Amino acid sequence: METFDAYIETHKDAFIKEFITFASQPSIAATGEGITEMAELTRQKMADLGASVQLLEIAPNEPPVVYASLGQGDKTLLIYNHYDVQPVDPLDLWESPPFQPTLRQGKLYGRGVSDNKGHIMYRVQAIRAWLATMGDLPFRINWFIEGEEETGSPHLEPFCLAHADLLKADGCLWETGGVDEAGRPVLSLGAKGLLYVELTVQSMSGDQHSAYGTIAPNAAWRLNWALSSLKAPDETILIDGLMEHVLPPSDTDLALLKAIPFEEEALLANLGIKQWIAGVSGFEALKRHLFQPTCTICGIESGYTGAGPKTVLPARAKAKVGFRLVPNLTPQTVAKLLRQHLDKHGFADIQIDLLSAEHPGKTAPDAAVVQAAIAAAREVYPKHEPVIYPLIAGTGPVWPVAVAHGTPLVCFGASYPGAKIHAPNENIVLDNYFQAMQMMGRFIANFGKR
Amino acid sequence: METFDAYIETHKDAFIKEFITFASQPSIAATGEGITEMAELTRQKMADLGASVQLLEIAPNEPPVVYASLGQGDKTLLIYNHYDVQPVDPLDLWESPPFQPTLRQGKLYGRGVSDNKGHIMYRVQAIRAWLATMGDLPFRINWFIEGEEETGSPHLEPFCLAHADLLKADGCLWETGGVDEAGRPVLSLGAKGLLYVELTVQSMSGDQHSAYGTIAPNAAWRLNWALSSLKAPDETILIDGLMEHVLPPSDTDLALLKAIPFEEEALLANLGIKQWIAGVSGFEALKRHLFQPTCTICGIESGYTGAGPKTVLPARAKAKVGFRLVPNLTPQTVAKLLRQHLDKHGFADIQIDLLSAEHPGKTAPDAAVVQAAIAAAREVYPKHEPVIYPLIAGTGPVWPVAVAHGTPLVCFGASYPGAKIHAPNENIVLDNYFQAMQMMGRFIANFGKR
Repeated sequence: METFDAYIETHKDAFIKEFITFASQPSIAATGEGITEMAELTRQKMADLGASVQLLEIAPNEPPVVYASLGQGDKTLLIYNHYDVQPVDPLDLWESPPFQPTLRQGKLYGRGVSDNKGHIMYRVQAIRAWLATMGDLPFRINWFIEGEEETGSPHLEPFCLAHADLLKADGCLWETGGVDEAGRPVLSLGAKGLLYVELTVQSMSGDQHSAYGTIAPNAAWRLNWALSSLKAPDETILIDGLMEHVLPPSDTDLALLKAIPFEEEALLANLGIKQWIAGVSGFEALKRHLFQPTCTICGIESGYTGAGPKTVLPARAKAKVGFRLVPNLTPQTVAKLLRQHLDKHGFADIQIDLLSAEHPGKTAPDAAVVQAAIAAAREVYPKHEPVIYPLIAGTGPVWPVAVAHGTPLVCFGASYPGAKIHAPNENIVLDNYFQAMQMMGRFIANFGKR
Repeated sequence: METFDAYIETHKDAFIKEFITFASQPSIAATGEGITEMAELTRQKMADLGASVQLLEIAPNEPPVVYASLGQGDKTLLIYNHYDVQPVDPLDLWESPPFQPTLRQGKLYGRGVSDNKGHIMYRVQAIRAWLATMGDLPFRINWFIEGEEETGSPHLEPFCLAHADLLKADGCLWETGGVDEAGRPVLSLGAKGLLYVELTVQSMSGDQHSAYGTIAPNAAWRLNWALSSLKAPDETILIDGLMEHVLPPSDTDLALLKAIPFEEEALLANLGIKQWIAGVSGFEALKRHLFQPTCTICGIESGYTGAGPKTVLPARAKAKVGFRLVPNLTPQTVAKLLRQHLDKHGFADIQIDLLSAEHPGKTAPDAAVVQAAIAAAREVYPKHEPVIYPLIAGTGPVWPVAVAHGTPLVCFGASYPGAKIHAPNENIVLDNYFQAMQMMGRFIANFGKR
């Protein structure tokens, strides 16, 4: 791989420049801003690699999937990425504009530089380096790049289940990955699912003077009490019947978990906190993080939130609540239990709107695509034994894209715990970026042999 | 009073035009918008009546008090009003622009038309009519018009306590009043107090990906649980020790309460609800409304509140909470009990910022100023016995302006239950406006005799 590595070394400045241009294009799935332009930019990147590319309309007037095929061979690798990003607010907390990627002390800052445009670009550039130095690809690559991952891929599942021919593969390289606090390469074999809902309370026909707080119903209070009925201050999820569906980790899962060097102190410091919630620490915190579902208030709003005091009794209140789902919790199950729970606890008036739903999914560690990634990691990071996560705490459409078709999957990439994905000042460490590119070369070689 | 009434009748169109101009000037205490211009406009109105007027600086760079003196006599009437208004949001719910007062079906719509600019204007126009038709005023009027009532008069109390000479009077006519659902004139003899605070939770150094909801502290959840510890779903205030300070209504209070024809069905319909909270109805609802304190979430905000789903774990959450205070609850007592309660229940990390504080205060019904108003109401509304509220459920600085100086007070005016004060589409019924003007003439005559 010397010529491959040398090619990367001599092209570093050009690669960074190309990456900055790629990440400068806004592509916010939640608002639609820049999505069309980003799909075209991504299509062009794939075409420049020599791929045959289609823009797949997965639903009318929704972000298309960029679907690229390149290389030949008996084996097929499916790659999954997404070209959309999270919204940028609160904008005033960014130290440089989110869509003007900016280099500071070896890191590139900007929305999407880690999640997920950096991961598209290191793979593009690794394949370009491979084609320039190693010859043809040893297998076929079908690259599936969607544009609404950050809104929970709302149209992906029916499309994927109806188009197994586009997705069927011997292995799948998933969207992201990276190194942990100590710089160890981290590989992941699955992802949690998600149910994301909006709860709305309308308690009166309109806002009233707060003097009526004595006798008239306050939407903010009703929402507050309904939320408190979902989760206790000790972090126990109280939705009737929900926890019964949670599959405990298997022996294989626990063995993988035990091998993970959980850098607890560094992660706590990174989040600016002294201890975890729910009284857990060490191995128990890690086990909880990966194998317990969440019930998270992602946003709440009611009444007057401007400057100074306003004595109003709010008639309307809204909360966005996200549930991360572990095997065997499905979004359908949780949605049904949530409705039943609210009805039973006196909150039948609270409206539930479904904003996102995804199944959890994971892969057994002995799959060829996993072993190829493990071997690649050992080559690029010789000082560290790779860390294998049986699944990640985040979510992606692993089920409709891979797991539902029997395709094993693995994640590796260029991120790190300080990447601030989904938050202001998202960033990527350039050293990690180029190491992921080197690993991609080894992974192509290894998966080609297996 | 025939000539007085005739003067009003012939000047109705001009009076409405003058009122619209007066209410067109924004004067939002919470943001400062238009306050300086409104103080000047108010000063000019007073000067045009022949008053000697001062702009009193009650605190540096804060809205001045317009203080006007007119008339001569052994007796002094203090009038209290305010020229500031509430913010206008949510702006999209207004059917006409809040600062372009608009006539529709006998009502004038605009921010402040009821609270409190309509009440300044009917009094100005009544005095003008008196001077034009009845001669000199039979007593001295000191008119105190402040500019930060809607933010809880934050600088008024120390100023008033230090300037008793400006305030000392034989009676005080308070800012507002009106008719009830059946058109009966309503007089009020006091007001509740207020403590308005902002609660802030900072759970981590910054927002995180919601995958960390398993183990990292969510500011929105902490705030939610803290709020739920303050008031139960059955509306019981749970703050340790608070209810012990509540003075039950006296026999005189209960006698006044029992004489109030509580138009329950009309009020319920007006608010768009089927029943009151806390299981009360009829007399119990009225008693609760006037003699129980409130604990109201006036606003809450955390995390992502834009369109679509965003899977974020919020590091920061804020709630605005207002407490309406009945005798003998003081803002100081409630602030202290709230801090103790949060500390005791595991929420010592929650920051409390004081945004507003006012004492409750009320007057005995046998005071001359009250009896003069009752007699005036009987003359203008011969079909109805006036309804006397021992105190109103709303708040104003009755304590520092009147009660603390031993001045009895009464409220009457031009509002009605559909006025939507503090809310979109605030309005005033013009018939009520002119009847309040007639009543002001009779009140001047009656108070002059007593």
